[in-house]
Amino acid sequence: MPDREASYNSNSKLEPPMILSKYFRQIHQFGKSQIVKDDPKVYDALRYSMGWIDENENPSSPHGKSLRPALCLYTCESVGTPFETALPAAVALELIHNFSLIHDDIQDKDLIRHHKATLWARLGTPKALIAGNIMRVVADKTARDLESNDLPPDIIFNVIKLLTKSCLEMIEGQFLDIQFESQLQISIPDYMNMISLKTGALIRTSITIGASIGTQDNKLITDFNNFATNLGFAFQIRDDYLGIWGDSTETGKSVGADILRKKNTLPIIHLKSQSSGTNSKHVEKIFLKDSLSENDLSDILHIMDELQTKEYTAERTNHYCDLALEHLNKLNLDNSYKYNFLELLEFFRSREF
Amino acid sequence: MPDREASYNSNSKLEPPMILSKYFRQIHQFGKSQIVKDDPKVYDALRYSMGWIDENENPSSPHGKSLRPALCLYTCESVGTPFETALPAAVALELIHNFSLIHDDIQDKDLIRHHKATLWARLGTPKALIAGNIMRVVADKTARDLESNDLPPDIIFNVIKLLTKSCLEMIEGQFLDIQFESQLQISIPDYMNMISLKTGALIRTSITIGASIGTQDNKLITDFNNFATNLGFAFQIRDDYLGIWGDSTETGKSVGADILRKKNTLPIIHLKSQSSGTNSKHVEKIFLKDSLSENDLSDILHIMDELQTKEYTAERTNHYCDLALEHLNKLNLDNSYKYNFLELLEFFRSREF
Repeated sequence: MPDREASYNSNSKLEPPMILSKYFRQIHQFGKSQIVKDDPKVYDALRYSMGWIDENENPSSPHGKSLRPALCLYTCESVGTPFETALPAAVALELIHNFSLIHDDIQDKDLIRHHKATLWARLGTPKALIAGNIMRVVADKTARDLESNDLPPDIIFNVIKLLTKSCLEMIEGQFLDIQFESQLQISIPDYMNMISLKTGALIRTSITIGASIGTQDNKLITDFNNFATNLGFAFQIRDDYLGIWGDSTETGKSVGADILRKKNTLPIIHLKSQSSGTNSKHVEKIFLKDSLSENDLSDILHIMDELQTKEYTAERTNHYCDLALEHLNKLNLDNSYKYNFLELLEFFRSREF
Repeated sequence: MPDREASYNSNSKLEPPMILSKYFRQIHQFGKSQIVKDDPKVYDALRYSMGWIDENENPSSPHGKSLRPALCLYTCESVGTPFETALPAAVALELIHNFSLIHDDIQDKDLIRHHKATLWARLGTPKALIAGNIMRVVADKTARDLESNDLPPDIIFNVIKLLTKSCLEMIEGQFLDIQFESQLQISIPDYMNMISLKTGALIRTSITIGASIGTQDNKLITDFNNFATNLGFAFQIRDDYLGIWGDSTETGKSVGADILRKKNTLPIIHLKSQSSGTNSKHVEKIFLKDSLSENDLSDILHIMDELQTKEYTAERTNHYCDLALEHLNKLNLDNSYKYNFLELLEFFRSREF
């Protein structure tokens, strides 16, 4: 899956940053206006997946962070253009993200997302597969609503190209991720390439599209793109951290979830590459098993402690947050915009959900 | 699945019409130029699915009919525009069709298509699902190559809209088809609506896009659209016919395949609605079984004989071919174009593959 996004939790130690809450209502209001059909019934599946209705088709509140559209809209606003101009593209990004989640859950056989049954678990694989495909087409149609916003055709065409490109990169990254499952050792550069596609592409493109709609200053757009690239790395590496050491009440996942699933996340790559001697043989033996026991999990966590894998993973998140900060400073944004991006960066550094 | 397309067979009683062979080489040549990447390995999966390479990654010849791109290109040429102008759109249609086949095979758990292992049967569901999604994005990118063909931007934009619309309709039709599986009785209007989406949308749009690129005469485009609508109905109903009475060496399916799979095709809808008394109860009992025996199949075929279901299905194909013919006559095409469309119509009427 591209990332592990748990629900908001009012008891959370870290409150969500302003950028994430600012447009939440508008994003979902506009999203709802794009999914209005009742028949075929697949549209209810889409609304359920977006968190707008619950299992009984009663209205409910979305649980995801809506990170990508928020990044897009805030970037657009920060360069002096009203966020509404970018709304169709922002919502298209959220729909593409949700398309990927629906199909990821089928691939990973995940039963729960955002504390609710996943779509395939509810409706079966065939209907969920189709619902994902429809979500993808609705995203395409939504982006075309940029035409109503008085944007020059070449900018619209460019945004649609960026959407297609990021969608392709995201799917290529998903494929690499699955391919890695059959490999015992993954190198760090291979891992970085995979996450730059799987998760990075959509996060990067959210900010680049926001900038491309908001300004015609190509240097500024490039600077935003560099900022976003590092933000994407930081986001996924923190996600990998939470997949092992996250608070299960916050993430909705059990402790060590990614170890039990033998995913090639950064801490596990670190473990495999840094362990030596008997530890290395023991790790190898455990990861060759069909399923891991509680003892196996505890052994792995113990070896990770010895190798300071947790500290390494946190340090890598910090590293990419620091690089993002360097690029943020180059953007010369007004203080209030800079402050809010800084708050977002701190959230990326230490978020628990 | 949208349709049952078996491979060409040189022993076939009915030779494929000229329209289907005319552009075969160009379609696949251009298609190959759109799928050139080697890494990630998913691109080999795409080439395999298009029939360009075999299981051992050796070059092979595509087995599908490439019906949709051929319809698009011939329509474009028939209204006086070189077919090359429409090539990117035509190939995009073929890629969208193949995207749908890859996902359909996952849904239906079909193991064989075009006498070869299906993608999910070879690579597993997760990789096949991703390959289908990539095929869809490659289709989007391919269509944008219309820009290189000196077409006005508004025509390109319109073509891309038509592609998105037909893709959405096709997927909605697939959803209805799956929904029908849980219903005992399907009405003929519901069936016609479902096939007009599932199969009709892409066939209709192939011709409409060919016309929209080839001419600016809106009346002519509408007439082509009406012709294409009936062609789509005839195509799917003949497909339903072949799903029961097709020659298995031609279709690659066993006799009565759709009965054994309890699909809601037109002959089965006819059987369910027309049988009465003990026959009706017997039919109902058989279709409530988890899996059908050879005896069940033979009973169903016998009742279909009594009800003249085969004749009914053939008559419905003829009916829509006749309607298509009426619209073809209105098009006022040059004789050679008209002749070739007529040949295609006769193929649709009585094809065995």
